[in-house]
Amino acid sequence: MSELRRDPLLRRWTIIAPERRAQLIGRRLARPLAEEEVPCPFCPGNEHLNPQEIYVARADGTSRSPHGWAVRITPDRQPLLRVEGAVERRGVGLFDLMSATGAHELVSDTPDHHAHWADFDLAQMERLLHSYLTRFNDLRNDRRFRQAVIMKNHGAPWSRYPHHHSHIVAMPFIPRRIDDEFIGAREYYHLKERCVFCDALREEEKRGDRVIVANDDFVALAPFASGFPFETWVLPRRHMADFGEVGARTIPALATIFCAIMAKLRSTLLDPHFSLALHSGPLNGGHHEEFHWHWELIPHLSGELGMEWATGVYFNPIAPEDAAACLRHGTPLV
Amino acid sequence: MSELRRDPLLRRWTIIAPERRAQLIGRRLARPLAEEEVPCPFCPGNEHLNPQEIYVARADGTSRSPHGWAVRITPDRQPLLRVEGAVERRGVGLFDLMSATGAHELVSDTPDHHAHWADFDLAQMERLLHSYLTRFNDLRNDRRFRQAVIMKNHGAPWSRYPHHHSHIVAMPFIPRRIDDEFIGAREYYHLKERCVFCDALREEEKRGDRVIVANDDFVALAPFASGFPFETWVLPRRHMADFGEVGARTIPALATIFCAIMAKLRSTLLDPHFSLALHSGPLNGGHHEEFHWHWELIPHLSGELGMEWATGVYFNPIAPEDAAACLRHGTPLV
Repeated sequence: MSELRRDPLLRRWTIIAPERRAQLIGRRLARPLAEEEVPCPFCPGNEHLNPQEIYVARADGTSRSPHGWAVRITPDRQPLLRVEGAVERRGVGLFDLMSATGAHELVSDTPDHHAHWADFDLAQMERLLHSYLTRFNDLRNDRRFRQAVIMKNHGAPWSRYPHHHSHIVAMPFIPRRIDDEFIGAREYYHLKERCVFCDALREEEKRGDRVIVANDDFVALAPFASGFPFETWVLPRRHMADFGEVGARTIPALATIFCAIMAKLRSTLLDPHFSLALHSGPLNGGHHEEFHWHWELIPHLSGELGMEWATGVYFNPIAPEDAAACLRHGTPLV
Repeated sequence: MSELRRDPLLRRWTIIAPERRAQLIGRRLARPLAEEEVPCPFCPGNEHLNPQEIYVARADGTSRSPHGWAVRITPDRQPLLRVEGAVERRGVGLFDLMSATGAHELVSDTPDHHAHWADFDLAQMERLLHSYLTRFNDLRNDRRFRQAVIMKNHGAPWSRYPHHHSHIVAMPFIPRRIDDEFIGAREYYHLKERCVFCDALREEEKRGDRVIVANDDFVALAPFASGFPFETWVLPRRHMADFGEVGARTIPALATIFCAIMAKLRSTLLDPHFSLALHSGPLNGGHHEEFHWHWELIPHLSGELGMEWATGVYFNPIAPEDAAACLRHGTPLV
């Protein structure tokens, strides 16, 4: 039975999940499964491989048949956090534990097994983002959860399945990486009484050399101290702490930016493996003045994480200005 | 020209090193180099591939010929931080930069191209640890440096070369991951007026189920909230903030523990790829009461880092008690 354990030094939670042990051992000792050997749990017709659906989006005018969805969300078969039960906290001597309570939902981003995000048309990207938004706001109603994260890992070894999918995870605590952002943003606000993201956006737009693509509502940029080559953030121009405030009206503008980034990653980096995460304010509000929701994306290019793990210092051989120029113009990386 | 950039949100430094760009692109676009194509920069006879040596250890009674070393330390050919010049700090609008000043030394752990750490006899492990200690204490004399980290990455994709080697990096700032430990240790000390590591050690020794191997001077254990399967820490029993205090007398005891862990990793996990890092107090002293130096080691087993990157929450399918039992008894992981 899985549980949450708190590092006594680092304010960091680890999900200890022994029921997933077989998965690690299989991955370590066996050859990777060939695609034809396992039925894809994200394909229409294989809906029975996942639990009962929570949400589906359909394309306009399509049938309401069980296989006729465009985006489909279910609980994860092997959830990292379990939705049942109260959040129980206890100590064992020096150490602190919490029940592994939370929500872990699995999103089939598309019914098409072979469609890359870069192949999505605007309508499909809108449906997907709208599905995220709907689930994000629904999870807010569960008072046990303090933070919801939407994340996507595309490509081995970060993900096992080639069919594009993503995860929505709601947690009974503020995850460390996001709390660090809240703390940094609050410290800046105390100093200046301004949002650090708004200030950075203004400065980046003035300079221009780290901006990748922008429209009236959103800006995609290569952050100043990018820890990874071609790291890309997408932020709303208007100050907003909470992704839930974005409103269906501006989803098309966000979808436009996402489609543009995917096209640029395809032309410059040849469809790299990538990870994507939403960082939003906490579900129960707060940080309204100082935090600013955004998506963070990193392509997986170098695989060199030794220094980062050892010290928390990142090493990046591509200056973000160069990355932005390359993406902005769609020039292949050579 | 490389530079250090500070993330305005996360108190985190990134080394932006465009001169290493070719390395990334080569790795991304080309097939990996076959071993016979590149001369190994860590082998005797190829000393000219690295800059002038800083330190060598020799086996007793061996010749003083240029190729007769047992451990050899030189500056890195492409240092992440440059040893020349003062530490210069400046701001650009909202953003903060520092010159990429520091030391980056490369250690040939052994002259034997094919020797794994698990093959080292006690004498070779002692020579290596003694070499680390000597360089660590020498770097302290350079008042520009605030922290020195000794780290090792063995196995692709974390390292390009199969010949066992390691890095010693001295930095003009406290790296974020280590500063987080200082902060956590200080908060605990404020609460209890005791060292959190000493408390955890006492508790682990009483329980016993997460202890892997121990002797009079050192304990190796699987930490309570291990973020990675088979994560292993080595700590001195006696409270000591600074690795430099360890003294040549206890190096053999530390070498014994390292050799034992390597033998256990070989028998249980079949010589996994691994990373290792020394976390010590700052070079200029401080944190004497509350910090406790230690080595951290992680085998690279799962490769699933999506959640960790997105949220700072770790996911570990092997409970540390099970990992410790497996390593303690040398039982293969099945």
